[in-house]
Amino acid sequence: MADSQIADSEITRLLRVGPGVDLAAIDTSATPGFDGDKAAGEAALAEGAQEVADLQEQLFAASRGGDTRNVLLVLQAMDTAGKGGIVKHVVGSVDPQGVSIAAFKRPTPEEEAHDFLWRIRKRLPAPGMIGVFDRSHYEAVLIHRVRGLSTPEEVESRYPVIVDFEKEVVAAGTKVIKVMLHISREEQKARLAERLERPDKHWKYNPGDVDERAYWDDYMDAYRVAIERTSTDDAPWYVIPADRKWYARLAVHTLLLDALRSLKLEWPVAEFDVEVEKKRLAAT
Amino acid sequence: MADSQIADSEITRLLRVGPGVDLAAIDTSATPGFDGDKAAGEAALAEGAQEVADLQEQLFAASRGGDTRNVLLVLQAMDTAGKGGIVKHVVGSVDPQGVSIAAFKRPTPEEEAHDFLWRIRKRLPAPGMIGVFDRSHYEAVLIHRVRGLSTPEEVESRYPVIVDFEKEVVAAGTKVIKVMLHISREEQKARLAERLERPDKHWKYNPGDVDERAYWDDYMDAYRVAIERTSTDDAPWYVIPADRKWYARLAVHTLLLDALRSLKLEWPVAEFDVEVEKKRLAAT
Repeated sequence: MADSQIADSEITRLLRVGPGVDLAAIDTSATPGFDGDKAAGEAALAEGAQEVADLQEQLFAASRGGDTRNVLLVLQAMDTAGKGGIVKHVVGSVDPQGVSIAAFKRPTPEEEAHDFLWRIRKRLPAPGMIGVFDRSHYEAVLIHRVRGLSTPEEVESRYPVIVDFEKEVVAAGTKVIKVMLHISREEQKARLAERLERPDKHWKYNPGDVDERAYWDDYMDAYRVAIERTSTDDAPWYVIPADRKWYARLAVHTLLLDALRSLKLEWPVAEFDVEVEKKRLAAT
Repeated sequence: MADSQIADSEITRLLRVGPGVDLAAIDTSATPGFDGDKAAGEAALAEGAQEVADLQEQLFAASRGGDTRNVLLVLQAMDTAGKGGIVKHVVGSVDPQGVSIAAFKRPTPEEEAHDFLWRIRKRLPAPGMIGVFDRSHYEAVLIHRVRGLSTPEEVESRYPVIVDFEKEVVAAGTKVIKVMLHISREEQKARLAERLERPDKHWKYNPGDVDERAYWDDYMDAYRVAIERTSTDDAPWYVIPADRKWYARLAVHTLLLDALRSLKLEWPVAEFDVEVEKKRLAAT
C-alpha cells in the first residue's frame, strides 16, 4: 500500500463541514463544485457509475483475500430530502450483493431496552461491503433532542459516545461518510404537496410529517450541534445542498467515489498455484 | 382483487419442471421460448427492467398499506453457473431498498447446532420485498447428499420437511420461485479455465471447485431427486439452460416479471383525508 494520498474531488472538499457550520447560510439550491445543469449532472453521474461499481467489486474481492476494509455511508435528512433517491440512483448502480442497507425506523421495544448503539452495531457492514444507513445513531441526538424522547442530559451524554463509537469503527477498517441532505423548508413543502397531488405517491405521505414542520428550526439546531460535536478528521460530516435532487445524487456519488479511490484497491493475489490448478482442471 | 389469472409467459411455461425431469436430456445451450440472439436477448432484458422495478415499488408500497405479500427467488446451481450474474444483472435493476439478498455459505457452528431451516427462516424476506436466496435450504439435500455431510436417513427426512416449510411460506403470502441454473460439465470447465487465465478473476477461483467436478453426476442425481420430491404447484421448480448467460438472465427476469404481474398490484388507497392534509400543509 503506497503512502501517498489520493486527492479528494472539489465537490468533496467543498461540502465537508465542521464545527461552526451555519446551516441557515448554506444555499440549499446551490451546486458547489459543479458548473453544469441538470442534464450535465445526470450525465456525470451516469459516467461515473461504472467506476463505483468496479471499485466495489475490487473491495469485495479484497475481502475474500482477508482485507477487512469497507465503506459506510450514513444518510441523515429531513423528510422528503431524498435519502431514498440517493439509495436508488447512486447506490443502485452497484452490484446489490456488495451493498447492505439498514433503515433505522422507530426502535422496537427490544431495541429500546438496549443502549442506542446496540441496533446500530448489529448492522455495521461486513468487510468488502458498502453499507448504507438510512437514518442512524444520530436519531438519538436529533429527534430525541427535538421531541424530548430522551432527557437533555441523556442526549448530551451521547455525543462523546458517538465519537468514540465511530473512532472504533474507523479503526476496524471502515471508511465513514456522514451526509446531511440539506433542503429548505419551502422545498419540503413543495415535495409534500406533490405527494398529496399524486395517488401513486400517497403511500409515501405521513400526516405526522406536517406536524414535524413546526419544529424545523429546532431540527436545524440539533443538526448544528451534532455536526459541531461529532465532526472528526476520520468521520467527517458533509452537508449537501439537496433542493436539486440531481446535484445531491451527483455529490453523494462523488463522496463514494473518492472514498473508494482512497482505498487504493488492487486485485488480491492468488493463494494457489495457477499453473498447478490449470493442470488439475485440464485433467477433469 | 380480481379472480382471473394472469397467464405466464411462454418462457416461464416452458422452463417449469416437475417429477420425472431428465436433466441430462435438457440442452443447456438452448433458449426455450426465445427466438432471438444474444443482442436481442439483452435488449429484451433492458426493455423489461423498468417494469420489474415499477412493480417492485408497488409491492413495497402495498406493504406499507398492510399487504404482507412478497417474492422469494431461490437460486441453486453448480459453481460458475451464473448465480452472481443473475443477482447483478436481473435483481440489480430493482431499487436496492426493495431487495434482500441472503447468501448461504457453509453453516457456522451456531447454525449447525440448529435444524437446517433455522438460518433459512431468519432470512425470509419481509413484506413488500424481493428476497433472493443465493443457495438455500436445498444445500441440505444437495451437497449433504453427495458428500455425505448428513446420513442418507437424515437427507431423506428433509424432503417432506422442505415441502411443509415452503407450503407455510407460500401461505404467509410469499410467491416462491425455485430456480436451478443448468450448465454443462464442459461449460463449467471453460468458465473455471477463464478464471485461471485472468488475474482479476483469481479471487473467484477455489481449488475445491475442481475436486467437486468429480461428483458431477452425483450432483445431477441429487438435483433430480430434489426436484422430484419438492415440486409443488405452489412452489414449482424451473430448470434454466444456462450455458448462455444472456438467456439465463432473460429467463429469470421473465420468471420474476410473471410472478410480480400475477400479484395484480395496485397503489394503496390513502388512509388519510387528502383534502384535509392539503389544508394542513398549506398552513405551515
